[in-house]
Amino acid sequence: MKITQSSPPGTGWLETAEFDLDALIEPVLLDAVATLDGRAPLLTGMVRYHLGYAGRDLQPLDRRAVDRGKRIRPAVALLAAGAAGGEPRAAAPVGAAVELLHNFSLVHDDIQDESPTRRHRPTVWSLWGIGQAINAGDALFAMAHLPLYRLASSGVTADLSLRLLEAFDRMTIAIVEGQTLDLTFEARSDVSAEEYLEMIAGKTAAIVRFAAWAGALLGGANEVAASRWAEFGLALGLGFQARDDLLGIWGAQEATGKAPADDVRRRKQSLPILILRDRLDDAERADLDRLYAAPNVDRAGVTRVLALLQREGVRQEVEAVIGTYHDRAAAALLDAARPGSNPARDRLLTLVERLSSRSS
Amino acid sequence: MKITQSSPPGTGWLETAEFDLDALIEPVLLDAVATLDGRAPLLTGMVRYHLGYAGRDLQPLDRRAVDRGKRIRPAVALLAAGAAGGEPRAAAPVGAAVELLHNFSLVHDDIQDESPTRRHRPTVWSLWGIGQAINAGDALFAMAHLPLYRLASSGVTADLSLRLLEAFDRMTIAIVEGQTLDLTFEARSDVSAEEYLEMIAGKTAAIVRFAAWAGALLGGANEVAASRWAEFGLALGLGFQARDDLLGIWGAQEATGKAPADDVRRRKQSLPILILRDRLDDAERADLDRLYAAPNVDRAGVTRVLALLQREGVRQEVEAVIGTYHDRAAAALLDAARPGSNPARDRLLTLVERLSSRSS
Repeated sequence: MKITQSSPPGTGWLETAEFDLDALIEPVLLDAVATLDGRAPLLTGMVRYHLGYAGRDLQPLDRRAVDRGKRIRPAVALLAAGAAGGEPRAAAPVGAAVELLHNFSLVHDDIQDESPTRRHRPTVWSLWGIGQAINAGDALFAMAHLPLYRLASSGVTADLSLRLLEAFDRMTIAIVEGQTLDLTFEARSDVSAEEYLEMIAGKTAAIVRFAAWAGALLGGANEVAASRWAEFGLALGLGFQARDDLLGIWGAQEATGKAPADDVRRRKQSLPILILRDRLDDAERADLDRLYAAPNVDRAGVTRVLALLQREGVRQEVEAVIGTYHDRAAAALLDAARPGSNPARDRLLTLVERLSSRSS
Repeated sequence: MKITQSSPPGTGWLETAEFDLDALIEPVLLDAVATLDGRAPLLTGMVRYHLGYAGRDLQPLDRRAVDRGKRIRPAVALLAAGAAGGEPRAAAPVGAAVELLHNFSLVHDDIQDESPTRRHRPTVWSLWGIGQAINAGDALFAMAHLPLYRLASSGVTADLSLRLLEAFDRMTIAIVEGQTLDLTFEARSDVSAEEYLEMIAGKTAAIVRFAAWAGALLGGANEVAASRWAEFGLALGLGFQARDDLLGIWGAQEATGKAPADDVRRRKQSLPILILRDRLDDAERADLDRLYAAPNVDRAGVTRVLALLQREGVRQEVEAVIGTYHDRAAAALLDAARPGSNPARDRLLTLVERLSSRSS
């Protein structure tokens, strides 16, 4: 399944004079990229290209000329540190680490999905081949650890650094497990909504969970509060993916940049389809499976699937799932954050609201 | 370039009642594998298959029924700890980490080289496809860190653990840089022997260097001695690869399991060929490049290349390169190891001798 980049809302609204996400994490990201010292210029080039620092000619690209992704994951880490009572900047190394790790998974995901474009540019594998794109992803994964070794220089104990690093690697294993399941599911027609959500908990939500948990610990959260922060991140990540699945079918074209019902046309086994299959009788389910066995679902097929989704009230059910995650995220947030005036918490609450009601 | 597994000498001779490599690292390896708790059974299965714990049916395989690799890298880590004055077991987590990391690079390397077999069994990608094999490699990379988080429980300070972990990730970047260069070189006909050795320093030798350095630190080496241990590992790794290149052309078939001059037939740009190209005049070099432009070099072509290699005395020059690395490794070892009676050092010295004169 393609990890979409176009659909999350921008984080521009999250930024204020007091919270400039780019200013906080950019130096840490650039520091990590600089460790590729040019012994293998193509590797440095591919990594810089993918991160939006360079064009396909490997020449530097201006920030305004390129989409470097919305950086939701680092925003969660930094705001969690702030909302837990610390300084957002304390979580900048974690923010950079999750952003690099996310980009590692995108580079490998694009190979696995044979995706030609990412953030409106050709993917790394489509420009330099599968073998070199594997290398680019591997380098991003190794580099993602480096910011976490800088935590000690801002007064974090070696014990806490080790704890965050171990959780980071275990979270990565959860992502890879989710990715493995996702590819496995493509060959199956009997995936349940429960299995799907478990897959998403690894593939998409584990990194948001880690970002919130680690950010909060660096902001001074105690163990009990940190657990609630992890629940917040998990619910936010799951709700985000469920919303993404909803928009893949019912999203407005102008806002998502996709054709209506694009996920039906592309036979994506997303949450609405899994819920629908569960509702159908054997004959209709066999019909649906036949439609989904072709490489693409044709126009008439898309109309038929949309009608079935409507008849079974699937959109409302997906909205209910999103609502449940929204409520869970909001409750964990209010529970975990420092009470009283807390602008970082309020921004996270706005993020929760926007993610659950966003139309693009 | 395929990382060969068949050619290193066995480590059986390294093992004695006092030094049972498998007994020391096997529990740590199994512990890391157990973190794949079965949420994605195929991922667990691919990792266990590749490591030789399971067959392609994912059922358990007995140790005697399968080649799990020679485990030279963990042997270096554990013997360095012993030779530095500590207990070999102190380096067991490092031994397991380098063995897992090595296997990560093999799984991705096999995809990049389109290798059908590894250790006499089908490769992961050839059984489960490229996408899932990428996942198996990614999981091995993440898992490779886990043993290093257990160091604290055997009394290693958190500061030293962090230092080893950071060096581990930086070493991995060097491996990926080497791998990137290696793939780049395949498309070039003007690679120099110097460039090649620099590539090998990352791709093959960086992990041996790390194993020796980290093992020695865990065995109590001071900083000065640890630097010498790193030099030892680097020279050992470089000498090993140069020997491997020599055997790929002049190795006896029965000992290497390859046809004579197999690397010529397969157009591998290994050290002897790079030295040869440098020696030829323009006309002969153009001849050689024409031969190497075909998918395979035919029988007459192989004979011609072997004659050129002989005329230019290339084998002797490669032997001289191996001899230089041998001397460098031996000198660093004798310098770095605890003086006096030191069986671990003596075993490492035997390893150096065997690697530089091995015929298989």
